Amino acid sequence: MVHHSKDREHLIRENIRGGKGIIETDIMYKADEMMGKVTLFNRLTIKPGSSIGGHDHVQDAEIYYVLEGEIVVDDNGKDVVMTKGDAMFTSGGEHHAVENRSDKDAVILAIVIA
Amino acid sequence: MVHHSKDREHLIRENIRGGKGIIETDIMYKADEMMGKVTLFNRLTIKPGSSIGGHDHVQDAEIYYVLEGEIVVDDNGKDVVMTKGDAMFTSGGEHHAVENRSDKDAVILAIVIA
Repeated sequence: MVHHSKDREHLIRENIRGGKGIIETDIMYKADEMMGKVTLFNRLTIKPGSSIGGHDHVQDAEIYYVLEGEIVVDDNGKDVVMTKGDAMFTSGGEHHAVENRSDKDAVILAIVIA
Repeated sequence: MVHHSKDREHLIRENIRGGKGIIETDIMYKADEMMGKVTLFNRLTIKPGSSIGGHDHVQDAEIYYVLEGEIVVDDNGKDVVMTKGDAMFTSGGEHHAVENRSDKDAVILAIVIA
């Protein structure tokens, strides 16, 4: 079933997973709409200087896809710059974190697979 | 692990699932890189007049997310227009198909969850 972008629930979240600042969150689908397959499907606007703190994905998996702007991710201990069109897949005990060190908003998709 | 957009394998595919015309496919990750969680993670450029034929998702699930342009999807028998930022989640026996009826390329993400 299609969900149109304009109809999405929009939240302002602070200090996600111990990170800094503000992440604007558009909930594309709620977990209970995704039949146990996917537990999170959000579009995140990461404001300049904001971040999501480091965390592991052991049993589940997370996809990031950059829609706009530039982020620096901690990719298992190594800083990597990601720009529009770049993707990150994190699972099997891998570790990641995200920070916007630029002076413009960065927009990414975040999808967590059960 | 990050995959940069510029490094992606790029394929030209025709008549996907009985659809019309050409779909350019950027493989963001290969199935064997996604630990059994995700079986397909591609960026598709659907040329004007091209389509992906109708099919069901029973055991697995597929996410579409529109990056550029406009598509018309068959959403369980109903035509729905999707534009940038719109998403579609298909699972549990739902049916979908995609067509680009516009005169410009449409670009979408397609992610199949096992």
